[in-house]
Amino acid sequence: MLSLGIDPGTATVGYGLVRELSDGALQAVAYDVITTPAHTPLWERLETIYTSLAAVIRQFQPDRAGVEILFFGKNVTTGINVAHARGVILLALHQAGLPITEYKPAEIKQSLTGYGNADKKQMQEMTRLMLNLDKIPRPDDAADALAVAITDIHSARFNAIGGWQ
Amino acid sequence: MLSLGIDPGTATVGYGLVRELSDGALQAVAYDVITTPAHTPLWERLETIYTSLAAVIRQFQPDRAGVEILFFGKNVTTGINVAHARGVILLALHQAGLPITEYKPAEIKQSLTGYGNADKKQMQEMTRLMLNLDKIPRPDDAADALAVAITDIHSARFNAIGGWQ
Repeated sequence: MLSLGIDPGTATVGYGLVRELSDGALQAVAYDVITTPAHTPLWERLETIYTSLAAVIRQFQPDRAGVEILFFGKNVTTGINVAHARGVILLALHQAGLPITEYKPAEIKQSLTGYGNADKKQMQEMTRLMLNLDKIPRPDDAADALAVAITDIHSARFNAIGGWQ
Repeated sequence: MLSLGIDPGTATVGYGLVRELSDGALQAVAYDVITTPAHTPLWERLETIYTSLAAVIRQFQPDRAGVEILFFGKNVTTGINVAHARGVILLALHQAGLPITEYKPAEIKQSLTGYGNADKKQMQEMTRLMLNLDKIPRPDDAADALAVAITDIHSARFNAIGGWQ
């Protein structure tokens, strides 16, 4: 099972592909960021995100996708722009036929560390350990996306065994 | 010149096509709403909006597009969903090669009535008069979209004569 995790943004979209191996171990297949140039119209940035993400999906052929849910900080304008980007991200994933699950930041933290308020450093270190990497993945948005993909695989496993029964 | 005006939403997207005739009169070529079923995942609704809007563009071949700018009311959640829809709307317009201009609600009101705080009834009546229609266009979101298209044509005229010089 190969999951594509997404950390949405307008300037930077993080993505990470995690495979569950037959022994249950997790492997980072690829991770990177899609960046869009500043000072260009929003629709050009949206098209870059959409076409770049579609290319990632074509290349790696994931089985499912996880996308982080937005929460508003103090900057509503930034949140609105990220929601525009998230719209084209969800469109690209759905058009590729991927089952999509959305995860709140606290769910991602809970899934990786057992603690919904884990800090960024703890999360990055757990991501590194769970994927058996030598170093913390960079850039940060790609590491965040890998954490989403790990959460998505945990969620798929949990549902496969029947959930809370 | 044919302008496509858009009133963005998640459940309902209004669109209106307005042509400027050679004598300067304005003609409503088509107007309607794209609706998406409630209680379906956001990504299915986004795909419906994207594909339906692309079909409208293919059918009518507009020269340019105007899109209303979002403002947040009390319901931030609704605003976030509308921003997702607006993302795929901007994507579809840009992919079709249309020049896009965004308009604030007050700019649209100013353009039609000369008054940035015009109420809904005044706006609908001015839209009817400017398009020489017998009745106020329905539904409301389609009428709003026609007002955006009229504003976009006014804006194009204004820029064609050199703007504020």
